[in-house]
Amino acid sequence: MDCLFCKIVAGEVPSETVFEDDAVLAFRDINPQAPTHILVIPKDHVASAAELEDRHAGDLVAIFKAAAEIASAEGIAQTGYRLITNIGREAGQTVFHLHFHLIGGRPMGWPPG
Amino acid sequence: MDCLFCKIVAGEVPSETVFEDDAVLAFRDINPQAPTHILVIPKDHVASAAELEDRHAGDLVAIFKAAAEIASAEGIAQTGYRLITNIGREAGQTVFHLHFHLIGGRPMGWPPG
Repeated sequence: MDCLFCKIVAGEVPSETVFEDDAVLAFRDINPQAPTHILVIPKDHVASAAELEDRHAGDLVAIFKAAAEIASAEGIAQTGYRLITNIGREAGQTVFHLHFHLIGGRPMGWPPG
Repeated sequence: MDCLFCKIVAGEVPSETVFEDDAVLAFRDINPQAPTHILVIPKDHVASAAELEDRHAGDLVAIFKAAAEIASAEGIAQTGYRLITNIGREAGQTVFHLHFHLIGGRPMGWPPG
């Protein structure tokens, strides 16, 4: 397995963890685009949102519940935040392990990239 | 119920539907930001991603499976696309019924807004 995020889950690559439960890990993006910029990932490997199947239902709910909890901890639950996942080259996906960018702490523009 | 997207689900407000199953409706954004810009929503009302609970697991999987199917139909499954959901004011959420923007058909910039 040569997946960067699987290595972070395994503790083989360091990260600034902000949340962890049985299904989900969340850590700060190393190239933040806003005061809060956190990656929320399932611990079990799946390449992208395009690969999600029925068996991932529990992981998906866990990801969104974690995101809400993290937003509260970051103090942005009331002001707002954006969740983004990129699928493929034109969207800018660079790590092929599903991850949601949780971005907030400033007003967000439109279009979203 | 004074929710625009519930009215679209009920057929009381017209939309350009591109996908529908028991749990999910998808229709074109009226202010598209890219060649493909579609909103994917659960038929059952939930205000935002911050409100998701265990009982929404089926809806969540259905949304992501629908998005992958729509991306294939739009011819952007291989080039790539971005899925975005906004929570609250600073993120630009304007309709308080959970929706994912499916955007693609051009290279996407970073940051995502």
